Amino acid sequence: MSARVLREGRVRLWLEPEDRGLAYGDGVFETLLVHQGQPVWWREHWRRLLRGAQALGLPLPDEAEVRRECAALVGESARAVLKIILTRGCGGRGYQPPPAATPTVVLSSHPAPEPMARGLTLRWARTTLAIQPALAGIKHLNRLEQVLARREWDDPGIDEALMCDGEDRVISAVSANLFALVGGRWLTPSVQRCGVAGIAREWLLANVPGAEEADLAAAEVSHAEALLLCNSVRGILPVRRLGMREWPGDEAATALRARLAEAQPAFAD
Amino acid sequence: MSARVLREGRVRLWLEPEDRGLAYGDGVFETLLVHQGQPVWWREHWRRLLRGAQALGLPLPDEAEVRRECAALVGESARAVLKIILTRGCGGRGYQPPPAATPTVVLSSHPAPEPMARGLTLRWARTTLAIQPALAGIKHLNRLEQVLARREWDDPGIDEALMCDGEDRVISAVSANLFALVGGRWLTPSVQRCGVAGIAREWLLANVPGAEEADLAAAEVSHAEALLLCNSVRGILPVRRLGMREWPGDEAATALRARLAEAQPAFAD
Repeated sequence: MSARVLREGRVRLWLEPEDRGLAYGDGVFETLLVHQGQPVWWREHWRRLLRGAQALGLPLPDEAEVRRECAALVGESARAVLKIILTRGCGGRGYQPPPAATPTVVLSSHPAPEPMARGLTLRWARTTLAIQPALAGIKHLNRLEQVLARREWDDPGIDEALMCDGEDRVISAVSANLFALVGGRWLTPSVQRCGVAGIAREWLLANVPGAEEADLAAAEVSHAEALLLCNSVRGILPVRRLGMREWPGDEAATALRARLAEAQPAFAD
Repeated sequence: MSARVLREGRVRLWLEPEDRGLAYGDGVFETLLVHQGQPVWWREHWRRLLRGAQALGLPLPDEAEVRRECAALVGESARAVLKIILTRGCGGRGYQPPPAATPTVVLSSHPAPEPMARGLTLRWARTTLAIQPALAGIKHLNRLEQVLARREWDDPGIDEALMCDGEDRVISAVSANLFALVGGRWLTPSVQRCGVAGIAREWLLANVPGAEEADLAAAEVSHAEALLLCNSVRGILPVRRLGMREWPGDEAATALRARLAEAQPAFAD
């Protein structure tokens, strides 16, 4: 992994310990797939970064500068993961943001995950997602719930865990959104109360006829005709197992995967 | 403000951009008053830091090393604020913590706040505290709710805001705990669902006869015989106003303030 920190027009390798991203998680982030040297879905990621920044009142970074440094960082990588963190920068008296904040942008590049050779095996997380409409949907830096949920298992045979909110609605996996095929339609939980408005989720909602948001209880997910997880690094991943439930075929999710690969060749691998 | 970063036995002035404290708010912190060169309530703060670290499964720092660097940082300051951040350090694949994490400790020293010449003026925050028992009580780094609540006002005549949870229980101020005198007893909200288990709050619960935890609705707080806020930097602060409600006298809180100053002379100022 290599990283760059952009602050006040300069590029550095280190972060000021006074940064509010560290102090309070006062920022947002994006994780992009890089394919043939190009960040995939750049426009969608940038738009979501700005949406989150506006919701939190963060100072906005310069897109051209960030894009240029991203290009320098990932170079000609055939395949990598690019992470962009935006914080409110330094300063302020306690929680109160400084009146004229200047943003910090942290870029880092990471190896791309291996393609999945099989459908995913999921478990249920005991850690729940707190209901907080003021932060729901935003990919912000307050991610302790995800850290706690991911700490619940270390069996490498388990790929992901599904998380519910404090009122027993299923919301998402730890680092992916969930779609469940119910009565022939792909349903995904709302992200109005908690959860992240994923870019791949948006693509599915916009491009799959009948796909829509719905409240889902754990039993409905377990009894669904099929499940898939999605995120903007891995695209669409069919689910093979959830606890004791097994889905022998994955034709429905695989068909969507092929459709995504047509629209966005980076996801053909 | 000056800062030091302790990692793997070394002291530096900068933070690695890969630190999980930045990426996920994966850590805890303490804010201590320094009086005549000494951190006040060190033992209590250290104990809470460890409790939070254990709840999150963070690697534990060496107390003697941290204490030594704190002393070097604050020197002979007559009065200052010392902040200690502990994070899970660097590494791990996504949310999954690395199997052998080494802690990062960030120390910083700040000017002490001015003593309050008058009782506090409070407002109600619109931002609520999400109910999350897995994180409640812990002084962790996921503090966007506090940042959002503090952004709600910039009138310097307002000192603090009271926050409710998502089910309309009053929990605390943005950066202090709350006690309300009701029927002659000092009551403070539970921090089992959200909020921070403050050190000054613990002192009051342990040292004021009849002080105890109770669920409080907004109306009960508004109609209380007296209110006070407390934290370990400012000690006990009487409240004079909350929205339209005014308490002309502050004898009850001032009596507790005097009692705290007796037990802990740092709070006599």
